[in-house]
Amino acid sequence: MSLIVVGTMAFDAIETPFGKTDKIIGGAATYIAQSASFLAQPVKAVSVVGYDFPAEKLQQMNSKGIHTEGVQIKHDEKSFFWSGKYHLDMNTRDTLATELNVLANFDPIIPDSYQDCEYLMLGNLTPAVQQSVIKRLHRRPKLIVMDTMNFWMDVALDELKETLKMVDVLTINDEEARQLSGEYSLVKAARKITGMGPRYLIIKKGEHGALLFHDNHVFYAPALPLEEVFDPTGAGDTFAGGFIGYLAKTGDISFDNMKNAIIYGSALASFCVEKFGTERLDSLTEQELEARIREFINLVQFDIDVK
Amino acid sequence: MSLIVVGTMAFDAIETPFGKTDKIIGGAATYIAQSASFLAQPVKAVSVVGYDFPAEKLQQMNSKGIHTEGVQIKHDEKSFFWSGKYHLDMNTRDTLATELNVLANFDPIIPDSYQDCEYLMLGNLTPAVQQSVIKRLHRRPKLIVMDTMNFWMDVALDELKETLKMVDVLTINDEEARQLSGEYSLVKAARKITGMGPRYLIIKKGEHGALLFHDNHVFYAPALPLEEVFDPTGAGDTFAGGFIGYLAKTGDISFDNMKNAIIYGSALASFCVEKFGTERLDSLTEQELEARIREFINLVQFDIDVK
Repeated sequence: MSLIVVGTMAFDAIETPFGKTDKIIGGAATYIAQSASFLAQPVKAVSVVGYDFPAEKLQQMNSKGIHTEGVQIKHDEKSFFWSGKYHLDMNTRDTLATELNVLANFDPIIPDSYQDCEYLMLGNLTPAVQQSVIKRLHRRPKLIVMDTMNFWMDVALDELKETLKMVDVLTINDEEARQLSGEYSLVKAARKITGMGPRYLIIKKGEHGALLFHDNHVFYAPALPLEEVFDPTGAGDTFAGGFIGYLAKTGDISFDNMKNAIIYGSALASFCVEKFGTERLDSLTEQELEARIREFINLVQFDIDVK
Repeated sequence: MSLIVVGTMAFDAIETPFGKTDKIIGGAATYIAQSASFLAQPVKAVSVVGYDFPAEKLQQMNSKGIHTEGVQIKHDEKSFFWSGKYHLDMNTRDTLATELNVLANFDPIIPDSYQDCEYLMLGNLTPAVQQSVIKRLHRRPKLIVMDTMNFWMDVALDELKETLKMVDVLTINDEEARQLSGEYSLVKAARKITGMGPRYLIIKKGEHGALLFHDNHVFYAPALPLEEVFDPTGAGDTFAGGFIGYLAKTGDISFDNMKNAIIYGSALASFCVEKFGTERLDSLTEQELEARIREFINLVQFDIDVK
């Protein structure tokens, strides 16, 4: 197996009802790579950072089996910065600041050592950049998973639709699924979206869990009810990292195995939200992850005999 | 087993994005009894209707194993009437009219033939009326399940809290759980509410499924993703009817069996919303119900081996 993760590595400043951070390290690729590395190593990262990004963080990633040869360091620009404030329900947030910086002209580079890629996870980015990564791989990966967001549906819909034709799995949230399809019913939305390219659609519903659609099959993974959601930033990326990490580890991309992958993604995401930024993932142990998987099994299992 | 269902039998006029009805038969007890009767018979109904309520409907109920000896018929008053309009998301609705009529002075009568009651389902009503039913039973039932709504939290909180002390299972929706507990997190809300009396709490989340809390145990039952929700009226009552009907049928009130009961409740509710009023329940067959239970199993089952 060989897994590439593409996305931002950045700074975030976050305010939630529970507190406020200064600039901390965030970015889709940071969360995805760190989450995936619990299950599959190496994880090969493609990203771009500025001179202000701490070498220490890249080193920490390396120590977790994340290769950073494909992370460009721009010595005359600053890293991407996002600042946001969450509402009390933690499902909605206001963006306070977005500074593109290095991201404005991000031209992803795929090192030769990455060309053996079998699993490709495209974190949320301009669809054109996601597309260029696919094109720069000499051989099409066995599985391409793509994350995106409503912003690209608003400003780059054609580009987005072109990119959708090139991927196997799309992950978006329920509102985005409704916007992309023009359908309120998620069953109808899924039918339309899986007709746009991706054969598999994952609809993320935050505290309400996640749905996997493929042909006429549906799988509904619950989210673990939590005492407290401290900071939801990165939960979706952590979910995606766990999902593709589990598939890469097991080498099995069947619908049945995707169900398991979704449970691993959900379990990892449930840790992510317990502290600010990647703090909880930094300290997470394999034993804690296994224990949480057991909690998920207990959460949903029931035993009915039907004729 | 002997099962009593208490609640309204009434007329509804419903408007949804899919259409509009004239006065059709509704009411909590109608849905609960009809749903429960798929699993356990007889179902003994306690309710009150006016001179305008069709004898034909009571007869239809009788033919489905629903006893109506405890349904008072007031020959000089009209039946309870509710009219509402659902918004596009089907999760919110405006009440257009509420005419209490017979409900204004509802004084429930428990026939002697009902005194063997082991399972009691209190549909949404004034908490004082729910309480009086419990007090009029000579022997406390093995299990008392109670449904209520935000309206009683607004206008009769003390009475509601007194009644809560007398029941085993409470079913409310997520917003109501938050209002009753003053906690946003459903885990914290559940801890507070199960401290108010009911040892079991079911939180209904509509299209997002239902949660069962008891001590430190949680069970999350998904809702089946549906092509179309035609009319959500009665879905919560149908759910409750399936829940208590399954428990009464199996005679097992363990946490594990309550999980199964919730799946049966969810399956029955998923039929209810397919047509206006009780129309879909009227035509439902046992084979269709069993097939849907299998759909629920496929929807959530996964197979992970953990150490």
